Amino acid sequence: MFHHSSKMQFPVRVEKPDPEFAMLLQQAIGGVEGEIRVAMQYFFQAMGARGDARIRDLLISTATEELSHIEMLGYAVALNLEGAPLSYQEESAKDPVINAILGGMNPRHILSSGLAAMPVNANGVPFDMSHIYASGNVAADMLANVTAEATGRVLATRLYNLTEDKGMKDFLSFLIARDTMHQQQWLAVIEEMGGLNASLPIPNSFPQENEAQEHSYYCLNTSLDKPLPKGRWSEGPAYDGRGQFTAKEQPDMLGGEPILGAARPGSGAQQEQIEGNVPPAGKPL
Amino acid sequence: MFHHSSKMQFPVRVEKPDPEFAMLLQQAIGGVEGEIRVAMQYFFQAMGARGDARIRDLLISTATEELSHIEMLGYAVALNLEGAPLSYQEESAKDPVINAILGGMNPRHILSSGLAAMPVNANGVPFDMSHIYASGNVAADMLANVTAEATGRVLATRLYNLTEDKGMKDFLSFLIARDTMHQQQWLAVIEEMGGLNASLPIPNSFPQENEAQEHSYYCLNTSLDKPLPKGRWSEGPAYDGRGQFTAKEQPDMLGGEPILGAARPGSGAQQEQIEGNVPPAGKPL
Amino acid sequence: MFHHSSKMQFPVRVEKPDPEFAMLLQQAIGGVEGEIRVAMQYFFQAMGARGDARIRDLLISTATEELSHIEMLGYAVALNLEGAPLSYQEESAKDPVINAILGGMNPRHILSSGLAAMPVNANGVPFDMSHIYASGNVAADMLANVTAEATGRVLATRLYNLTEDKGMKDFLSFLIARDTMHQQQWLAVIEEMGGLNASLPIPNSFPQENEAQEHSYYCLNTSLDKPLPKGRWSEGPAYDGRGQFTAKEQPDMLGGEPILGAARPGSGAQQEQIEGNVPPAGKPL
Amino acid sequence: MFHHSSKMQFPVRVEKPDPEFAMLLQQAIGGVEGEIRVAMQYFFQAMGARGDARIRDLLISTATEELSHIEMLGYAVALNLEGAPLSYQEESAKDPVINAILGGMNPRHILSSGLAAMPVNANGVPFDMSHIYASGNVAADMLANVTAEATGRVLATRLYNLTEDKGMKDFLSFLIARDTMHQQQWLAVIEEMGGLNASLPIPNSFPQENEAQEHSYYCLNTSLDKPLPKGRWSEGPAYDGRGQFTAKEQPDMLGGEPILGAARPGSGAQQEQIEGNVPPAGKPL
Amino acid sequence: MFHHSSKMQFPVRVEKPDPEFAMLLQQAIGGVEGEIRVAMQYFFQAMGARGDARIRDLLISTATEELSHIEMLGYAVALNLEGAPLSYQEESAKDPVINAILGGMNPRHILSSGLAAMPVNANGVPFDMSHIYASGNVAADMLANVTAEATGRVLATRLYNLTEDKGMKDFLSFLIARDTMHQQQWLAVIEEMGGLNASLPIPNSFPQENEAQEHSYYCLNTSLDKPLPKGRWSEGPAYDGRGQFTAKEQPDMLGGEPILGAARPGSGAQQEQIEGNVPPAGKPL
Amino acid sequence: MFHHSSKMQFPVRVEKPDPEFAMLLQQAIGGVEGEIRVAMQYFFQAMGARGDARIRDLLISTATEELSHIEMLGYAVALNLEGAPLSYQEESAKDPVINAILGGMNPRHILSSGLAAMPVNANGVPFDMSHIYASGNVAADMLANVTAEATGRVLATRLYNLTEDKGMKDFLSFLIARDTMHQQQWLAVIEEMGGLNASLPIPNSFPQENEAQEHSYYCLNTSLDKPLPKGRWSEGPAYDGRGQFTAKEQPDMLGGEPILGAARPGSGAQQEQIEGNVPPAGKPL
Repeated sequence: MFHHSSKMQFPVRVEKPDPEFAMLLQQAIGGVEGEIRVAMQYFFQAMGARGDARIRDLLISTATEELSHIEMLGYAVALNLEGAPLSYQEESAKDPVINAILGGMNPRHILSSGLAAMPVNANGVPFDMSHIYASGNVAADMLANVTAEATGRVLATRLYNLTEDKGMKDFLSFLIARDTMHQQQWLAVIEEMGGLNASLPIPNSFPQENEAQEHSYYCLNTSLDKPLPKGRWSEGPAYDGRGQFTAKEQPDMLGGEPILGAARPGSGAQQEQIEGNVPPAGKPL
Repeated sequence: MFHHSSKMQFPVRVEKPDPEFAMLLQQAIGGVEGEIRVAMQYFFQAMGARGDARIRDLLISTATEELSHIEMLGYAVALNLEGAPLSYQEESAKDPVINAILGGMNPRHILSSGLAAMPVNANGVPFDMSHIYASGNVAADMLANVTAEATGRVLATRLYNLTEDKGMKDFLSFLIARDTMHQQQWLAVIEEMGGLNASLPIPNSFPQENEAQEHSYYCLNTSLDKPLPKGRWSEGPAYDGRGQFTAKEQPDMLGGEPILGAARPGSGAQQEQIEGNVPPAGKPL
Repeated sequence: MFHHSSKMQFPVRVEKPDPEFAMLLQQAIGGVEGEIRVAMQYFFQAMGARGDARIRDLLISTATEELSHIEMLGYAVALNLEGAPLSYQEESAKDPVINAILGGMNPRHILSSGLAAMPVNANGVPFDMSHIYASGNVAADMLANVTAEATGRVLATRLYNLTEDKGMKDFLSFLIARDTMHQQQWLAVIEEMGGLNASLPIPNSFPQENEAQEHSYYCLNTSLDKPLPKGRWSEGPAYDGRGQFTAKEQPDMLGGEPILGAARPGSGAQQEQIEGNVPPAGKPL
Repeated sequence: MFHHSSKMQFPVRVEKPDPEFAMLLQQAIGGVEGEIRVAMQYFFQAMGARGDARIRDLLISTATEELSHIEMLGYAVALNLEGAPLSYQEESAKDPVINAILGGMNPRHILSSGLAAMPVNANGVPFDMSHIYASGNVAADMLANVTAEATGRVLATRLYNLTEDKGMKDFLSFLIARDTMHQQQWLAVIEEMGGLNASLPIPNSFPQENEAQEHSYYCLNTSLDKPLPKGRWSEGPAYDGRGQFTAKEQPDMLGGEPILGAARPGSGAQQEQIEGNVPPAGKPL
Repeated sequence: MFHHSSKMQFPVRVEKPDPEFAMLLQQAIGGVEGEIRVAMQYFFQAMGARGDARIRDLLISTATEELSHIEMLGYAVALNLEGAPLSYQEESAKDPVINAILGGMNPRHILSSGLAAMPVNANGVPFDMSHIYASGNVAADMLANVTAEATGRVLATRLYNLTEDKGMKDFLSFLIARDTMHQQQWLAVIEEMGGLNASLPIPNSFPQENEAQEHSYYCLNTSLDKPLPKGRWSEGPAYDGRGQFTAKEQPDMLGGEPILGAARPGSGAQQEQIEGNVPPAGKPL
Repeated sequence: MFHHSSKMQFPVRVEKPDPEFAMLLQQAIGGVEGEIRVAMQYFFQAMGARGDARIRDLLISTATEELSHIEMLGYAVALNLEGAPLSYQEESAKDPVINAILGGMNPRHILSSGLAAMPVNANGVPFDMSHIYASGNVAADMLANVTAEATGRVLATRLYNLTEDKGMKDFLSFLIARDTMHQQQWLAVIEEMGGLNASLPIPNSFPQENEAQEHSYYCLNTSLDKPLPKGRWSEGPAYDGRGQFTAKEQPDMLGGEPILGAARPGSGAQQEQIEGNVPPAGKPL
């Protein structure tokens, strides 16, 4: 069960309200790199966690922390919006700075939320929950989590560079620090599960004999005019300990030409597709 | 520039058409774990790739292979739909098997595509391009790619278990094998960039002094009634070589209570929010 | 800041796992009538709450409770999925019951989540945050909240009727009870703000003289062959105390015919739209 | 059946075209607070209306009026776009006003619609029909309608404040007036159904004995460090006449800890989730 | 302005309610081939129509007819849902027919709409207004309209085949007939604008000298192993009267290799992308 | 199977990077008029193509060309973003030009992609695959393709007008030329199938006797105060050769009034809808 206390995790101070920065901050709330995503992702992973119960506990604990990050960001957006224009000023036609403020901010911060945060990204596109990755496979989920924290920290550093407000910089440096930890804590879960190599190929519970292993360890070049770039991906032992990486310079094209033949009567096709100059299935004309 | 040849990468055979399996296969085309996602993700990463040019070449080469996987899956769906019901049969009321076929398949395979694949998932929800992760940070992107291939292989093994059709099993064992390679090839890129540890924290180009480092290496417990589960995440050296993991059993709650005060006149609020019993910003009532 | 404890708010017991009911329960998680919606709606309203600080506290307190409802539902879905089919059985072709199970459940509960809840509705459509209503006007927001709790309770009673599982019925009767309270608690906020009539018209802070008041209190009939149905909406004092409801049997059509005239050169129109047989703006041909 | 006449409901005049205001007006067309939403919401409620036939008639009559509001807004947007820039001007690099126009307007008003309205909001996000609330329960639907008209009027007053164009102000004052009526007309329907109190809890047709009534009338505090804010929600008779509001300062946490146990073989989990250090379902490690 | 009359355009009769057919009918309401789409598409085209005023009148007139089609379909769905199961029946476990009904229908017809139509397609995916094509170019728009009516009629014939209900068949034969007309009426608009050939290339108002005309009339083969299939597209005069179709068997690849060089400091990239083994822009390593 | 070569189809040169033009170019990548749409549309049509195998080959060949167009546009966006601001400059408050750049560009080009293209439109809305039209009916699909190329060329000419960069103008003039061809090549397919008239009504395989032919050839006026505008749509032979166009000045309204009657017990309706003052189905009160 969840509980709440009235203090925030870290101070949120805005020295000079900036409606344009409010719009940028929205990416950290409702963007795919943002906090709603990690909060909900860890929450749903926890609710489906089977196996080592410590991982479930770590997931729900961090989900709870991320909810607290949404809270701080929401407040930060509202404080930055205190300076937003609410009414037309005759002068704005002459003064491009005023126009630029409205042009640079999210107009829905005035029209829809009344100077408050919304669950949308920096383009005003609402977050949608298809971005919650919870596959039931703990290794896949941990990689998804490291990815989320990596893009989250990339975003936070970009936001840090785009403001000069001391309060916002302090706050972002805190979020950046937590992302540093969270990236590594999910890697630590993989280590506890036996390490990355032992986890591969994900899922590691599928019987290897059901895999077409002759296609499992070559890096395929599909370029017509350049060789496969060489690197660790084209030589050396596979990380899963079961094969050797090689370079395959051309695909085999083992399959035939896909030709479906005539359309079935009653399927809504044109008559010509049903009985015209139609090759039989699998055969070119 | 892209080119095409008429042969497919691997044979696609369906021994007994199964409209319900066609619906399941859609997840591998238009699901977030599917092939449109990886094809487009590697393509967009390639188009924004800055740095080592080999990585761009590897991305575009694999993007091209994934396009060929969509092609095979599209054909597989169409072949499985050859047996779908197109017209009402009086008997269907009596025969639950016929009803079950229509209930279990995607009705839009009849209504909208005329017995062909669609760019949707197994629920009929269209793929949307917000799932293309291309951050401009190669380490974050490679982790996103390993994640995509991990969930992709998880999906392919689940599909393998859900069919007994020999042609489909062979085809899926090929896709499973390629996912085995692709998972590891993106990890190999990270190795070429200096290894996972050297990549952390992502982005590794942000000056460490701008980060609130006192918050960078503790694993936070937000549970009220259980201690933080212990593991590699709560002790030992951080993977980035810059700190030591510790367990922090309680959050500090360094911030104050977020109180926004009165609404501004003209902001569309109720009168009571503007001039009622309203605390000043930052102060509880 | 948020915290978590390991016990759930109410017991969640499933006597007989039912994958089809798991699919139905998803509506209460990721549907527009569901718990993600109310949790996030109250949370975002709280983060933008200006005015009486008690309302902010009530919002965040209930948001926190709703997070705990998601938690219980997520567990309920996972428990109902324990009985789902994972592998093909030769007999399924002969046994329509087995086919019906797969037909009636959400296939992504196998393919994507590995037998766990997802943030989607009963059709598998992901929840999207455009459904979070937080307008900055407390009266509008409270009405949105009553609506959410009303549709939520309607949904919960429908789910109650669709299961015979004793554990699920108990759990749903708890959710139904909480919705009973939540509907009324948001109405109580309106009472504290002066009552519903004093809140009207929402927003009540807009100067009445800027409104075309001659159009504010008639109920308009747009039917050509039936009179306006009579009722409280067509007679008696307006609830805002500023007018008298009347019935207007026909619209006035005070405006002219909207004719835009010719397209501008360089606007991408056809040549005929630019210089053909084109009426001047506002004038019919 | 629907019909059309060539005159608009109210005059739409634009004295000085303003592409930026065209972008803002889009929120009233394709925003969740806008006219497509109410037109379609009342239409779908009408098509599913069971019970008192007057309500159906009122719904379809008002739906028809809202269609006429879309029409006026569409024309208003097109007229405001007459002044939009269509071609590059060398000077724009030097003249920030010209750049600001393009920055402040919706670029798709040039690129996609050719200077005409689109069914999108002020961020350019298309309206999606998941926002049409039609639950089959008339009380829930009427509350949804009051909410829609409340947020619609809030929006219209914000737009009113953001323009100085006399024609647009007149037009908006008309829309504001109609929203004043529509808010109250849906409340009048509830009065005709017996009044708000008699409608509670919604749905009022669910047998009260199937509800866990011991949880129906307390307002729950989930805060760890503040008492529940006191108000009408924590004392006095419930509005449904069946209970007494009370304050409950702490949740009971009647449920256990949700632990799912091991993953099933063949479910795509990691091997460690299936047979590792896994607690039995319901039991912590 | 819009008006309404109480009679429907055509009788809607359901002899035997069929919840599964209700789900299929939803495609004709909220699918991309459906009636909301055409109603709104013609409406938005009308509101942006510049040029010959007759076309605007035809658009708004037909938009109004399509609204009446939504109305009939909404009623048809509700009538088909009268037979839907609302409560659990112990026997359903034994009786696969009952299960199949719930499996084959849209569960949200019970859970969300209470046995009424929703603005969603046959998969339960809500219609979204990005499908409204209104480009401001009348020729492009008319082709979009013919396309919409063509896919709409294809859908209606498929629905016709999937029911044996006499009332539904009669109703669908009416919709099919209207689509027959509507397809051709939009082609007639093109004829009035000078005919299809004179309309090409769309837009026909762009100065031909600004087009790279040497690339305007060849049909390009990108296949490596098959020649371009020959047909009218590869020989004969172009339809726009300005060129001659030819077959080009191989692309020229006139451009260079796209290499972006190093990432900029402060852009959130990895350090290795900024200063590693990085080729200069435009040059391979 | 797909292949790739390192050279682009046409040179992509940017003389002066312009982050605002990068945002506009996104419409040609991820807009509904853009290249992802046509590439995927032709690809999915090819994968479902039944009938004349030449059409499948033409579809896959052009799909492959369109993939190469995405590639060029992606590079064009990245090159235009080289000049984007990455960090705050104190002076920006004083210098409106700098603010206008950030206001006019897509902020996610900094925040999310790190100066690279994204699969979104000019509003930052991600492309979604519901826009891929592939109906299984070749005539409907070809019309959808001509429409896509028509709106695509309209867009490209608008972009051409909005830049003065020589490199971008050259590149766009190439895309415009290819759209000229592609529009006409899909019309040529229709000619090969017997011509447009022979294709009508689409689908031409539905038995004419199942259509309510008395409703197939009149153009319906739904206006109350204007006659149907006259034109080719109201007189002359139908294009399908089966009828004669006429004008019908008023709808017949052949249907009754849709009244659903009482709600069913257990359906979640209000009690008053179940047993109140309710008309029997089909009968007004």
